[in-house]
Amino acid sequence: MGINIDNTSTKKLVEMLAKKLLESGKTVATAESCTGGNIAHNITLLAGSSQYFLGGIVSYANEVKMNVLGVKKEDLEKYGAVSQAVVESMATGACKAIGSDFSVATSGIAGPGGGSAEKPVGTVWMAVSNGKNTVSKKWNFDGNREEIIEKATKSAIFMLLEFFC
Amino acid sequence: MGINIDNTSTKKLVEMLAKKLLESGKTVATAESCTGGNIAHNITLLAGSSQYFLGGIVSYANEVKMNVLGVKKEDLEKYGAVSQAVVESMATGACKAIGSDFSVATSGIAGPGGGSAEKPVGTVWMAVSNGKNTVSKKWNFDGNREEIIEKATKSAIFMLLEFFC
Repeated sequence: MGINIDNTSTKKLVEMLAKKLLESGKTVATAESCTGGNIAHNITLLAGSSQYFLGGIVSYANEVKMNVLGVKKEDLEKYGAVSQAVVESMATGACKAIGSDFSVATSGIAGPGGGSAEKPVGTVWMAVSNGKNTVSKKWNFDGNREEIIEKATKSAIFMLLEFFC
Repeated sequence: MGINIDNTSTKKLVEMLAKKLLESGKTVATAESCTGGNIAHNITLLAGSSQYFLGGIVSYANEVKMNVLGVKKEDLEKYGAVSQAVVESMATGACKAIGSDFSVATSGIAGPGGGSAEKPVGTVWMAVSNGKNTVSKKWNFDGNREEIIEKATKSAIFMLLEFFC
């Protein structure tokens, strides 16, 4: 796609995503754990976003991941909330719950607490989906809580853009 | 309660809300339309928020208001999305969908488009609820889109705090 994520602001990535969605007539939804609503916030800062952003689920508690997004209890118990299996279920669950063409999901550890040797603070699993095909990736961000949230938000928008191209 | 909203930052209000929720052992959820996830984002910027913030629904599309939050189609058709009836249903629906003790809901016109003589840009209906009792208020904010979102976010946190006292 030729986008350099480091040299492109979140705002610019959001504008590029908006253009792609408007051109294709497609809609998008979010399923956020560690980013806590900040992806939806950045998407909806842009005027006219109601044309392609249908809504999102902030699933902080595991019960919300299960009850609203359809994440399986067995996956949460076996792999933990910050895992490929859970974030992929969150993404497909968001398309279904919200009724969107595309979705992006995040689950990670924004810190300062909650980290472990296996999953240190800054570990964030993300998935993008069209309800059928799902692509996921594990990121490792450094910085404080706010910085990790901002970096994860930017990367989530970037993954959505990549999914289109 | 004695809080001057104009002299208190959103961050400080969030910290005061966190203290109240931790002391009471109660949980909170959000149902956001015009604020687009920014209330959830501000609540979850604070470390440890997973102890009392269960999750939220960003219901930008009317279908999400109906299908996820249980807002009645008749209310949307009769009163419009930016109305007391709809925002109160969003608040009670959030408590139910998320399973929280308390909730706050917003529905308004962040602009620059979408305004009318009756409901100009900056009109925001908000409701706070414990699932049984619900309090709602219509606000009128000035500024650009981002400013209206930020002011509405701050006022929503303030309404949650007031609901406790």
